[in-house]
Amino acid sequence: MDRRTLLAGVGTVAATAASTFPAPAIAQGIRELKMVTSWSKNFPGLGTSAERLARLITQNSGGRLQVKVFPAGELVDAFEVFDAVSAGLADMYHTAEYYWIDRSPAFGFFAAVPFGLTPNEMFVWVHHGGGQELWDELSAGFNIKSILCTNTGVQMGGWFAKEITSPESYKGLRFRMPGLGGKVIERLGATVITLPAGEIVPALESGALDAAEYVGPWNDLDLGLYKAAKFYYYPGFHEPGTGDVVGINKELWDGFSTEEQQVIETAAAAEYSYSLATFNANNRIALKTLINEHGVKLRKFDDSILRALHKLSDDVVAEIATSDPLTQRVYDSFSKFRKSIMTWTDLSERAFLNARSL
Amino acid sequence: MDRRTLLAGVGTVAATAASTFPAPAIAQGIRELKMVTSWSKNFPGLGTSAERLARLITQNSGGRLQVKVFPAGELVDAFEVFDAVSAGLADMYHTAEYYWIDRSPAFGFFAAVPFGLTPNEMFVWVHHGGGQELWDELSAGFNIKSILCTNTGVQMGGWFAKEITSPESYKGLRFRMPGLGGKVIERLGATVITLPAGEIVPALESGALDAAEYVGPWNDLDLGLYKAAKFYYYPGFHEPGTGDVVGINKELWDGFSTEEQQVIETAAAAEYSYSLATFNANNRIALKTLINEHGVKLRKFDDSILRALHKLSDDVVAEIATSDPLTQRVYDSFSKFRKSIMTWTDLSERAFLNARSL
Repeated sequence: MDRRTLLAGVGTVAATAASTFPAPAIAQGIRELKMVTSWSKNFPGLGTSAERLARLITQNSGGRLQVKVFPAGELVDAFEVFDAVSAGLADMYHTAEYYWIDRSPAFGFFAAVPFGLTPNEMFVWVHHGGGQELWDELSAGFNIKSILCTNTGVQMGGWFAKEITSPESYKGLRFRMPGLGGKVIERLGATVITLPAGEIVPALESGALDAAEYVGPWNDLDLGLYKAAKFYYYPGFHEPGTGDVVGINKELWDGFSTEEQQVIETAAAAEYSYSLATFNANNRIALKTLINEHGVKLRKFDDSILRALHKLSDDVVAEIATSDPLTQRVYDSFSKFRKSIMTWTDLSERAFLNARSL
Repeated sequence: MDRRTLLAGVGTVAATAASTFPAPAIAQGIRELKMVTSWSKNFPGLGTSAERLARLITQNSGGRLQVKVFPAGELVDAFEVFDAVSAGLADMYHTAEYYWIDRSPAFGFFAAVPFGLTPNEMFVWVHHGGGQELWDELSAGFNIKSILCTNTGVQMGGWFAKEITSPESYKGLRFRMPGLGGKVIERLGATVITLPAGEIVPALESGALDAAEYVGPWNDLDLGLYKAAKFYYYPGFHEPGTGDVVGINKELWDGFSTEEQQVIETAAAAEYSYSLATFNANNRIALKTLINEHGVKLRKFDDSILRALHKLSDDVVAEIATSDPLTQRVYDSFSKFRKSIMTWTDLSERAFLNARSL
């Protein structure tokens, strides 16, 4: 999913001038905290996750931390949340870190990597594999403390007007696939076209696009992609479990009591369970609707395509690693962990899922 | 894993007489809550999960709910926790619900079902698939409110002295595999032998056992199973993501403020993420140790074996469902959900994991 373009229609409200932001209000021991987000109001899955996280923090602090959510465009635009929190103009953000790869390519590893980690594996890397320490080092350079709090689950591979059968099928394909996934399919000869979400269906219908990727069944049904392309491919190799984050102004974070920090960390870990379950619950239902009511044809990418995509993905990610020493260290940690957890996941989750579907 | 026998060595301390349990202490607004568990002190994974959950509740309530953990045998024995909480002699338990199938077979569905749900799927069933409502109805009959809070992840299939190649290999096999898994392999002709954890290794060494199942690499390494059998089979079809639970005396629960209830629910959802990650993190490392340092030979069950086990598992579980009307309703809900979520999981998690390992 490209949330930049997804939200392009939202971000026209000018950011409130910096000087008009009050510092966190302190009245009778109650602290009001502004959470700015990269999501439109009630955007299913991600907007609702930010809202639930805010409620969890507010409730679990006994109301001492009152978190108020601002959808994209209300206080600042979708892609101004990083700078706003960094500067202390807002208190916290809910976003995906891959929006900040222009600050450092290392941020991408804390959101989604093609052929990378599943949602459960990502939580292990961050909490047990050295991920959080590297993330702290990275974010501290921008005066931010980041905590993993949301996951979309495995995404889908995209909507295609015609079936594709081999890596060669990508040659000349006009494909809306942003981010690292787009860089990968370009190496197969596809032409990557960037469009806001609202323009995808018309572009597919007019033939300006041959294929497009968005999120998963829940959001894709909502956007109406099935109206313009019938072949729905899986798996979503490019975003196998996209993590989202609550980022807190670091001076504010450092000033919190241990108890306040624990309330936020606990709420984030709880929201990881809640958000992932919400995506999977709704994707399960939406998938049925797409197939039974809209005649969508599911297709698995051919193994020859997946092998080619995997090889190119590894190349693209390894090239990013060379950007700077910290990104290289994040890549090294991520890659070493991925190799190690794959051995266990293959024997446990993967082997069980395959056995169950024999 | 058979936690009954696992803990047989622990439970020799006589339960404290009922009358000596004080009601939850109320002093200066602070409530002291006793959490009794089915685990020995610091039992890796489950004992440590109970301890962490207690800390999360205590911290997130600002210390107003002070949860103190009692390992099995300290206040009550491992398998007396249900009755103790039901009667209000203790405030809450941390256990696996399949220990209470003699109260109602329906409890088994809230822990582990052969060829059932993965950890993530189970959380979806409970929170979005009608599971919690049925669980509430079931537990209310025993004056208990149960909340899903822990998951072990996918377990392993067991340790074998010799390789097995087909369903026929199970004939006459003396196998330590308790619970529903044991009922399944009995139908393949295995002889199920129940032994406490501490007696498994000697029994394998003496030839009294041909095979044994325990948990996963982390706990299995700890118990030293690799010393007595070299073939380590996967996947653990019988426990594909065992859920554990915090059960609270229902009168106590109903008397909590909404805020107190939310603190406990949030802590449980957070602990679900933390516990699963801890199991996966440690299993990942222990598996490497078993292979590289102890010469363990990994083997995947042959597809013919998995197909036979799956068919027999479905039979065993369906037979249990007929026990009583509530169990039938729980089974119906579980089965319908399982079928529905499998379609989505197969396209997302399973398809991605297979693509990544091509």
